[in-house]
Amino acid sequence: MPESKPIQILGISGSLRADSYNSAALRAAAGLMPDGTTMATFDIGPIPLYNEDVRQEGLPEAVQALRERIRAADGVLFVTPEYNYSIPGVLKNAIDWASRPPEQPFEGKPIAIMGASPGVLGTARAQYHLRQCFVFMNGLVMNRPEVMIGQVGTKFDADGRLTDEGTAEHLRKFLVAFRDWIAFAQRARAG
Amino acid sequence: MPESKPIQILGISGSLRADSYNSAALRAAAGLMPDGTTMATFDIGPIPLYNEDVRQEGLPEAVQALRERIRAADGVLFVTPEYNYSIPGVLKNAIDWASRPPEQPFEGKPIAIMGASPGVLGTARAQYHLRQCFVFMNGLVMNRPEVMIGQVGTKFDADGRLTDEGTAEHLRKFLVAFRDWIAFAQRARAG
Amino acid sequence: MPESKPIQILGISGSLRADSYNSAALRAAAGLMPDGTTMATFDIGPIPLYNEDVRQEGLPEAVQALRERIRAADGVLFVTPEYNYSIPGVLKNAIDWASRPPEQPFEGKPIAIMGASPGVLGTARAQYHLRQCFVFMNGLVMNRPEVMIGQVGTKFDADGRLTDEGTAEHLRKFLVAFRDWIAFAQRARAG
Amino acid sequence: MPESKPIQILGISGSLRADSYNSAALRAAAGLMPDGTTMATFDIGPIPLYNEDVRQEGLPEAVQALRERIRAADGVLFVTPEYNYSIPGVLKNAIDWASRPPEQPFEGKPIAIMGASPGVLGTARAQYHLRQCFVFMNGLVMNRPEVMIGQVGTKFDADGRLTDEGTAEHLRKFLVAFRDWIAFAQRARAG
Repeated sequence: MPESKPIQILGISGSLRADSYNSAALRAAAGLMPDGTTMATFDIGPIPLYNEDVRQEGLPEAVQALRERIRAADGVLFVTPEYNYSIPGVLKNAIDWASRPPEQPFEGKPIAIMGASPGVLGTARAQYHLRQCFVFMNGLVMNRPEVMIGQVGTKFDADGRLTDEGTAEHLRKFLVAFRDWIAFAQRARAG
Repeated sequence: MPESKPIQILGISGSLRADSYNSAALRAAAGLMPDGTTMATFDIGPIPLYNEDVRQEGLPEAVQALRERIRAADGVLFVTPEYNYSIPGVLKNAIDWASRPPEQPFEGKPIAIMGASPGVLGTARAQYHLRQCFVFMNGLVMNRPEVMIGQVGTKFDADGRLTDEGTAEHLRKFLVAFRDWIAFAQRARAG
Repeated sequence: MPESKPIQILGISGSLRADSYNSAALRAAAGLMPDGTTMATFDIGPIPLYNEDVRQEGLPEAVQALRERIRAADGVLFVTPEYNYSIPGVLKNAIDWASRPPEQPFEGKPIAIMGASPGVLGTARAQYHLRQCFVFMNGLVMNRPEVMIGQVGTKFDADGRLTDEGTAEHLRKFLVAFRDWIAFAQRARAG
Repeated sequence: MPESKPIQILGISGSLRADSYNSAALRAAAGLMPDGTTMATFDIGPIPLYNEDVRQEGLPEAVQALRERIRAADGVLFVTPEYNYSIPGVLKNAIDWASRPPEQPFEGKPIAIMGASPGVLGTARAQYHLRQCFVFMNGLVMNRPEVMIGQVGTKFDADGRLTDEGTAEHLRKFLVAFRDWIAFAQRARAG
């Protein structure tokens, strides 16, 4: 009996800061992936500011790379900080570029959203704004479980390693649920 | 070859007014259902104000009826007015009742949302709030097409019949998409 | 030198349950009011389900009472539970009634919003939906501090008394800020 | 009797495209300013992608300029496109930079929001997200009138001049209301 191809997840952190807790949370997720899945990440740092005049002249290389990676992935995991009660501009900017013609790679794509913040809300407000974006792009955003890592400074050590076992356990369940959500969408498409 | 059972959709209008445009839009939808589907509606008028103390003593009859109808349906179509830039209290109240223990009938249920208003936005703001509610209840809300019937007074006649052909055509596409969305979820579950 | 009239705040709890934590939080707020303010509360339990046909025949007595109380108050404090990631239907229903013609009593009225929930988010999602409602009604909603009492069961005793000193201190600051916000609006209007 | 100093409004367009309708709408607003006001604009094109590591080394020049301009203005007018049902990343990015320590120039600042889009909603969804951002930053966002210029291609000519008289009239009222909203806040502060 042939082994099935692993489910490939693309992970994107919404922070450009080297010691970002959200990038650390993405690395933690990569280390907790369930059986049958793999995780690769994409760095949005080289994505330029979106300008439609620039797009008309041709997609920047980093944008092309991002789009190809989204297209090739079975699902996309966003790890988003919250800035000013919404999505960081740098993350939204990368999504804006990715979503533009000629084709829109989030169409029908399974999506999961998580985030970490120093406050107790764990980027809840940014996450609901991000969910609304995918209504337009027809991404299939998993409803639950939600991962909102609050008081993040107490849950990662100085080297950015997740040390809080409760958070790790919740993350494991979230990743299993995302794997299942992707499989759900794949079965439906295979019909 | 056996005929497949038709997809059964439960339609709920968020207005209690007898001549409500949203109830008229629901009737219009019922008249435009695509092959392989049937529509029945539920009147939320008899649902009382939600009070947890009352619930502890037993679900009111109208609430039980609503829950059974949701459970039995393959998908639920909400036709929502917009009051004060959000979901009407009476509609939210019915949903609040329906969602309470012992079981939550919206779990995994395909949902579609539409609405009509005198202004140009066609209840957009109410619809995004309603979408957020179903993140919690794990309803599977169809992303698109969206139906936001603006300037509703010009699109229905005095007897509440839809007279605008563009709106009717859009509604037809929306209902086909909802049928397909329900079938998508059913295939995934059957897996 | 004449004493100035105290600032009168109307407090409204969004829960009908007798032992509601949100009603308890409103009572706690009433006990912590700063100098120069008074608090009275209004019970939304008797407000019927909104129906425009009913309104056309005349405002129900409880609705008239609510509108008069809002009109007479210098500011309105909402203490809202969160149901299904949004405003409770019963609270939204009371606001829907209050906002209808002939006059809209929230116009230019200073508003503050707080809430309590068993989870960590403390009704954040309901509060942002409620804020959006007051964009339409032109209420002047205080931006901050925000009061989101999470894990509420650990902060009130069995008799509904606030026992958490950190929460009490935050509530005191919130109420002082609301008094100042009302005074800000009054100075602006007096010109 | 001394003439009072004119109210100075800073206008910011959220699009970098040269022929942007939103930038055209900002120019139209600049040409319709009421008595007692002046409008200057700021181009966010040179604002780099936000990165906290970069900020720690010192604010980029364009960011410093933006912050000084916000600080000096009596009110800030945002003209926002809508990308993917939310705020454009480039606009959010500029706001993210502007809002960071050592001081936050939107604190207590009167704000107005408008936007233009090809669809009928006129950037409504982006505007409500932007409003939520200013809850955090304690900007004083004017509630109404709202300016959502839908089907924008029919309202401006090929040179980006506003040709629709209804829109111009609505814009005039909006700008008078913003002047009055700024004066309201100034009276309140002067106390």
